[in-house]
Amino acid sequence: MAIFGLIEYEQASPEVRAIYDDIMATRKVDWVGNFWKAIAHDPATLKRTWESIKQVMAPGAIDAVTKEMIYVAVSVTSQCEYCIASHTASARNKGLTDAQLKELMAVVGMASETNKLVKGYQVEMDERFKTP
Amino acid sequence: MAIFGLIEYEQASPEVRAIYDDIMATRKVDWVGNFWKAIAHDPATLKRTWESIKQVMAPGAIDAVTKEMIYVAVSVTSQCEYCIASHTASARNKGLTDAQLKELMAVVGMASETNKLVKGYQVEMDERFKTP
Amino acid sequence: MAIFGLIEYEQASPEVRAIYDDIMATRKVDWVGNFWKAIAHDPATLKRTWESIKQVMAPGAIDAVTKEMIYVAVSVTSQCEYCIASHTASARNKGLTDAQLKELMAVVGMASETNKLVKGYQVEMDERFKTP
Amino acid sequence: MAIFGLIEYEQASPEVRAIYDDIMATRKVDWVGNFWKAIAHDPATLKRTWESIKQVMAPGAIDAVTKEMIYVAVSVTSQCEYCIASHTASARNKGLTDAQLKELMAVVGMASETNKLVKGYQVEMDERFKTP
Amino acid sequence: MAIFGLIEYEQASPEVRAIYDDIMATRKVDWVGNFWKAIAHDPATLKRTWESIKQVMAPGAIDAVTKEMIYVAVSVTSQCEYCIASHTASARNKGLTDAQLKELMAVVGMASETNKLVKGYQVEMDERFKTP
Amino acid sequence: MAIFGLIEYEQASPEVRAIYDDIMATRKVDWVGNFWKAIAHDPATLKRTWESIKQVMAPGAIDAVTKEMIYVAVSVTSQCEYCIASHTASARNKGLTDAQLKELMAVVGMASETNKLVKGYQVEMDERFKTP
Repeated sequence: MAIFGLIEYEQASPEVRAIYDDIMATRKVDWVGNFWKAIAHDPATLKRTWESIKQVMAPGAIDAVTKEMIYVAVSVTSQCEYCIASHTASARNKGLTDAQLKELMAVVGMASETNKLVKGYQVEMDERFKTP
Repeated sequence: MAIFGLIEYEQASPEVRAIYDDIMATRKVDWVGNFWKAIAHDPATLKRTWESIKQVMAPGAIDAVTKEMIYVAVSVTSQCEYCIASHTASARNKGLTDAQLKELMAVVGMASETNKLVKGYQVEMDERFKTP
Repeated sequence: MAIFGLIEYEQASPEVRAIYDDIMATRKVDWVGNFWKAIAHDPATLKRTWESIKQVMAPGAIDAVTKEMIYVAVSVTSQCEYCIASHTASARNKGLTDAQLKELMAVVGMASETNKLVKGYQVEMDERFKTP
Repeated sequence: MAIFGLIEYEQASPEVRAIYDDIMATRKVDWVGNFWKAIAHDPATLKRTWESIKQVMAPGAIDAVTKEMIYVAVSVTSQCEYCIASHTASARNKGLTDAQLKELMAVVGMASETNKLVKGYQVEMDERFKTP
Repeated sequence: MAIFGLIEYEQASPEVRAIYDDIMATRKVDWVGNFWKAIAHDPATLKRTWESIKQVMAPGAIDAVTKEMIYVAVSVTSQCEYCIASHTASARNKGLTDAQLKELMAVVGMASETNKLVKGYQVEMDERFKTP
Repeated sequence: MAIFGLIEYEQASPEVRAIYDDIMATRKVDWVGNFWKAIAHDPATLKRTWESIKQVMAPGAIDAVTKEMIYVAVSVTSQCEYCIASHTASARNKGLTDAQLKELMAVVGMASETNKLVKGYQVEMDERFKTP
């Protein structure tokens, strides 16, 4: 269980409830994930994190599904099981296909392999990759 | 410098040269990066890695630019500077815009933050995120 | 279950028992955690690790609670659930307040985010941060 | 060099300049680090990151020096050289002593070691560490 | 449960079944691990990964048990519990002794500690370690 | 440069000098690496780390070259360039061949790839891999 437990909607302060409402409205769902219920014990962190996520994950130059794929890629690389499961679910809800999910994993796997080969072989930067 | 040095095209064995040729032809460029020149000291690894990368990074259900973004996301998360620089360059060559690159970094940063909050707060998996 | 199982006090050799005794005496508790019972299968590692931990975690220029906070920060960053849970418990036993625990997590999260932005943007070191 | 270069104060837009001014005023210094100058190419990220850092790093239940120590601990664990150097410098400016810095490193090192022993020995969670 | 579930031998396509057969024949066992059954949903990844693993893990200049030890060392460092458990089992099946397993963990732990001390102390490379 | 600079033999206190002497005698060399000279600013950490390394890296159930390979595998996985370079050099001094070094890197790379596939596909543990 989460360290401080989970704050359900019914128990939440008006401040926390307003953020839960915004999460549900923005995502067009009628529930809030355990992550938010866990960090709600620190309303300042809840508010800051939600507002940042809302801003960063909104479609912009990159569409929403691609942003979820990037989120999953980071979460797999840093080995966060909850984050992998929740953002894989989000990505699929937003339209990620099974074929795309499989290709995503293949790319993450290959990138992890070459990341290590680069370090192990002590490869120096090509001049052309240096920013001017 | 790379641990065994770099094998330039002129010095390369026919086996290695054939792979360099395929890399350049596939990518439509006239040069090969230091990564390939470094691992060319192990032709089996060079061949296997190139063929895997070629298969995995080819456009499929996910387009080529998005695959490069995923590659960069993994490389930033695992802190491989060479990989970040080389795949950021690749992504831009394939059409990644500055606006997209900035949004990519913002997503990677936020995902890294929430990955840690999840672990720190010891958040348990929502039932709905469990695969059946 | 731990790979070799857990060595309970009753089963322990005199050598292992002496270390368990020292752990309990140092910490003023009447139990030993699973970590110690698991590595007790390698008495040399048990002894070396306990003596190192005892030396390093003793209050010195940094007080005991702050040392536990640092321990938790490392454990969250390297995603070790057992270590997070056990050292969060230790920290609280030593006086860490809920408010401090929440701020700790907020700092760990933000540091993780900016760590990635630094790498992603390929930020070069300021001259003033270089050690002379 | 940073991927988009560094935006110096003189070149900065009024929006960016206002944040630089706030960074300098908050920190009581007359310069801004390369990190901020690099991400200033994305004013939304600059603003969001600075406001988050300002909120999170302000002294609260945890004092400012301890927050910097936690920041350094995370940065060492995730191997971000720039972050280690810049936040070690910040911590010392805020009063971290050499003795504390050395103890900080000793704790980070030991935590990293035991994090791995826990995983390698596949240690299961003690009942007492589970949150209720 | 794995995201797409597990493909058992009986359900598998001829293409997947051929790889399962090769895994069992190569390893001289009559079962296939969940990892392979999970990625079998992407036959291209299954085939590529198995062929790569088969090539890389075959005894060569390094014997099979040592290769498994290296695999475990990487898996402990990147905190992958499944990989630690499965490759520890493989290593033992191939002859790894309990004494060796314990020494392996001790080395992994110490390396993790000094990795962090190096970064924390910002140690610069010795000239003698630079490759010519 | 290292945060506190490097303590050369000539400047060292008798306590530090004794450890330098032991490092050189144990390794049968006439020099000490920057790592030791950097942490020598904290004699307690220097002594504890050296004694631990000396104990752990001594040939036992696992020979010295294999231990160095494991050290390199961990260092590549946690992306510590200094550690990779210094322990690759040590391994070669102790007899690691070029062919072995290349196979080592291939194993580290493949393990990193499958570590991520396991997490991404959310593979559950096989019953047979669970310790009794």
